Amino acid sequence: MSRKTRTYTLREIVKRLGGELVGDPRVRVSQVATLESARPEHLAFAAHGKYLRQLANTAAGAVIVGRAGRGATGLPRIVCDDPYAYFARVSAFLNPRPRARSGVHPAARVARSARVGGGASVGAFAVIEDNVRLGPNCSIGAGCYLGANVSVGAGSELYPNVVVYHDCVIGERAVLHAGAVIGADGFGIAMHEGRWLKIPQIGRVVIGDDVEIGANTTVDRGALDDTVIEDGVKLDNQIQVGHNVRIGAHTAIAGCAGIAGSARIGRYCRIGGGAIILGHLTIADHVDISAATLITKSIGKPGTYTSAYPFEAHRNWLKNAAHLRKLDELVRAVRKLGRGARQREGKKS
Amino acid sequence: MSRKTRTYTLREIVKRLGGELVGDPRVRVSQVATLESARPEHLAFAAHGKYLRQLANTAAGAVIVGRAGRGATGLPRIVCDDPYAYFARVSAFLNPRPRARSGVHPAARVARSARVGGGASVGAFAVIEDNVRLGPNCSIGAGCYLGANVSVGAGSELYPNVVVYHDCVIGERAVLHAGAVIGADGFGIAMHEGRWLKIPQIGRVVIGDDVEIGANTTVDRGALDDTVIEDGVKLDNQIQVGHNVRIGAHTAIAGCAGIAGSARIGRYCRIGGGAIILGHLTIADHVDISAATLITKSIGKPGTYTSAYPFEAHRNWLKNAAHLRKLDELVRAVRKLGRGARQREGKKS
Amino acid sequence: MSRKTRTYTLREIVKRLGGELVGDPRVRVSQVATLESARPEHLAFAAHGKYLRQLANTAAGAVIVGRAGRGATGLPRIVCDDPYAYFARVSAFLNPRPRARSGVHPAARVARSARVGGGASVGAFAVIEDNVRLGPNCSIGAGCYLGANVSVGAGSELYPNVVVYHDCVIGERAVLHAGAVIGADGFGIAMHEGRWLKIPQIGRVVIGDDVEIGANTTVDRGALDDTVIEDGVKLDNQIQVGHNVRIGAHTAIAGCAGIAGSARIGRYCRIGGGAIILGHLTIADHVDISAATLITKSIGKPGTYTSAYPFEAHRNWLKNAAHLRKLDELVRAVRKLGRGARQREGKKS
Repeated sequence: MSRKTRTYTLREIVKRLGGELVGDPRVRVSQVATLESARPEHLAFAAHGKYLRQLANTAAGAVIVGRAGRGATGLPRIVCDDPYAYFARVSAFLNPRPRARSGVHPAARVARSARVGGGASVGAFAVIEDNVRLGPNCSIGAGCYLGANVSVGAGSELYPNVVVYHDCVIGERAVLHAGAVIGADGFGIAMHEGRWLKIPQIGRVVIGDDVEIGANTTVDRGALDDTVIEDGVKLDNQIQVGHNVRIGAHTAIAGCAGIAGSARIGRYCRIGGGAIILGHLTIADHVDISAATLITKSIGKPGTYTSAYPFEAHRNWLKNAAHLRKLDELVRAVRKLGRGARQREGKKS
Repeated sequence: MSRKTRTYTLREIVKRLGGELVGDPRVRVSQVATLESARPEHLAFAAHGKYLRQLANTAAGAVIVGRAGRGATGLPRIVCDDPYAYFARVSAFLNPRPRARSGVHPAARVARSARVGGGASVGAFAVIEDNVRLGPNCSIGAGCYLGANVSVGAGSELYPNVVVYHDCVIGERAVLHAGAVIGADGFGIAMHEGRWLKIPQIGRVVIGDDVEIGANTTVDRGALDDTVIEDGVKLDNQIQVGHNVRIGAHTAIAGCAGIAGSARIGRYCRIGGGAIILGHLTIADHVDISAATLITKSIGKPGTYTSAYPFEAHRNWLKNAAHLRKLDELVRAVRKLGRGARQREGKKS
Repeated sequence: MSRKTRTYTLREIVKRLGGELVGDPRVRVSQVATLESARPEHLAFAAHGKYLRQLANTAAGAVIVGRAGRGATGLPRIVCDDPYAYFARVSAFLNPRPRARSGVHPAARVARSARVGGGASVGAFAVIEDNVRLGPNCSIGAGCYLGANVSVGAGSELYPNVVVYHDCVIGERAVLHAGAVIGADGFGIAMHEGRWLKIPQIGRVVIGDDVEIGANTTVDRGALDDTVIEDGVKLDNQIQVGHNVRIGAHTAIAGCAGIAGSARIGRYCRIGGGAIILGHLTIADHVDISAATLITKSIGKPGTYTSAYPFEAHRNWLKNAAHLRKLDELVRAVRKLGRGARQREGKKS
């Protein structure tokens, strides 16, 4: 955890971020921490009820608790409706993102036709092609490549070695982590006389505002129309988004998930790590998909969906899983037994 | 979709690409589109019979249809055997790949011993090590790294930030998307006295002609012999290909698939997204593997193979999946019931 | 396989690496090879008993065999306890890693406050930010980016285009393959009033000694505390390690695996390709997890754990898998039949 030297009183924090302060308002904190590892200069948090027990043993100087935790500790505390969200906000306040020095690094290559907004920065060895537009205060990391006509909105940050292919659009306040690739060709091929023909991918990727995209995540450009990532979408690392996918606003997807071409994901969905969503299907708003789940057809109703095979000790798995290939046989045997039983019942009555 | 200004008459298109023209041959189109989003300057296509209904509502100026669709519309139309393949070819004609300016960018580093073919281009901040050979008209993107002795065939294109380790061979007309890594060490380790020994990976990666490799896909070099990707193979994004794998010609693999070491995949296979193929096994030609399927042993016969657990609402899954760990018990119970039933049958007769 | 010209006698090899030499000690070899592809200048190995049959047909000049293989061939042979480990060591001896020329490439950007150890190398277009410390003899590839305060231990090697975010620590003799990203933000978000708040990720990644990290693998920095990779851990390509994960010493993880946030993996574990480990759970030492397995809760005992659905021909899968959504119904039907049978048994007695 980074060591901070600037401190704030609880009074200053509550004045800025709200919440009810209980205990000494002059207590000073410099950083957030977990209950377990906190020291006296830290503000810790008990996000859920089950953490309230840990309050007795924490060395934190102060804590954030929910309404139910108001009387659970004698420590100076900030009482609020949603301790985890409060923690997120106080952490953002205590840990502002470091800003790159504005300006174009002398070792970057920026096309003469590109426009660089005020306060924007371009790192060493970045390449900015013709007609790129960089909004004010956006930050392009070292070694990034932005193809012709790309546009990046105000305040967006690209970490090093991000590649954005030509014509793609990135909104405001986006964060793209290192190694992300936006706008590579979708996987469009057609078999013709024993060879694959490539189908030119002439759509773009259009990314809304307040989107975060994880390290080494890939979002393919559309085949004909665009691939669209709406406002507020959060993608973790190593996710693959196929061509012509649309991901609805404020949907969050965990690492290693794969979304096949032309899938339409709703708003406020949450998709677990390693999930695979097949192509050309539609998922409603507010759908949760469990980790490692395969979605093979459209989902019209909110709720949680799962397809995981439960793990077990390998020797037991061997015994159990072998029957899966004979499940139909088993079902037939049970049906036959059922018919026999019903016949006997019929005879008796 | 990119806006094109150059237009072609249907007569010009049919003259170049074949097919039967029905309707006004002077109609001009500038771009391909889906039936749904097409405008009058567009040539749309109805790839399958089920799209024929959409023909009534399209605003396209002309359409590509199969034999069965010949009379399904009054629009000017190109009738052909395979509308999707025709569309691929007309799109390639209307959207030629942009060519990088030939020549070595002054900010690239090319070893003196490297040979650069005529018409080839090397982008800014690319590094070309000793004895690399670049074929005519090939294009190496910004920030790419080609290790010593690498060879890239004529007309191949590497997008930015591709890394090719030493000694690897890439054929002609290959396309490698951004962030692909070719020839990193295979995962070869041996436990010895409580520590992992690294096994030097001294094979290469050898890639044939007309291969496409997706963004952030990785192909490991061989441990002793080479890893081989044959002609016409198409790999989507974020695929992992282990050491000493051989992928047969014209096989296509969708995103996020993983192929473990020494697997041998046949020709004309199609492997779905997220599939995992274990190592040291052989898959015949013309095998299709479903998305998210795990292949644990060799497959000797063409056909489609699947291992997906069907998804369902989580509350139902909880009820059903719990029984998987007791499937063997269930089978035994059914067998016992069956024996009982047969005994009763025996007594009766 | 690379062609070597320097040769060694078997006597020299045994003198350096141990083992019992049987046959002509003056036989010279230049390279290791498989039994199948070996030529007379090669030293091949029969790692397991089942390879002993191949000894009859190999063209190798000499072989490495276990105790059981001592009499299985008339070829000159090195007899040892663990032929695969011996092979690893002899291959490392015959194939020393090529060393980059030491020094900072003139086209690299190294901050004045960074310290570069003796014998270390920094490739073209690499960026080394403020206060980075590079140990002696470490090698930073072309296009790498090391954020402020990063430390890399002696003898470590970063292949091209690796990105290490600020404050992260890499131990000695580490190998990081191309495209790896160390220290990107963990996936920490909190829903608040209809939007995701970002939780600043203020921990680091701390990597021990003798760790290898595969191409395009990502290891996220901790949210508050650090993400820790202990000594001797080996990670294959395209693995995702979430924030605050701890991976115990000498654990090996195959490609495409995903480890969710705050999971604690023990020492000497082996995790198969494509496995997914959920977050906030603990896995004991010496646990093996099969490929493509999903681990949903903690594992307290050593052993092998599996959750794979067995693959089969698609038409059979269709018949069998459909019953999984009615498994609970099936179990109830069997129980009912069981009760009926027991009642009949009761009546009879």
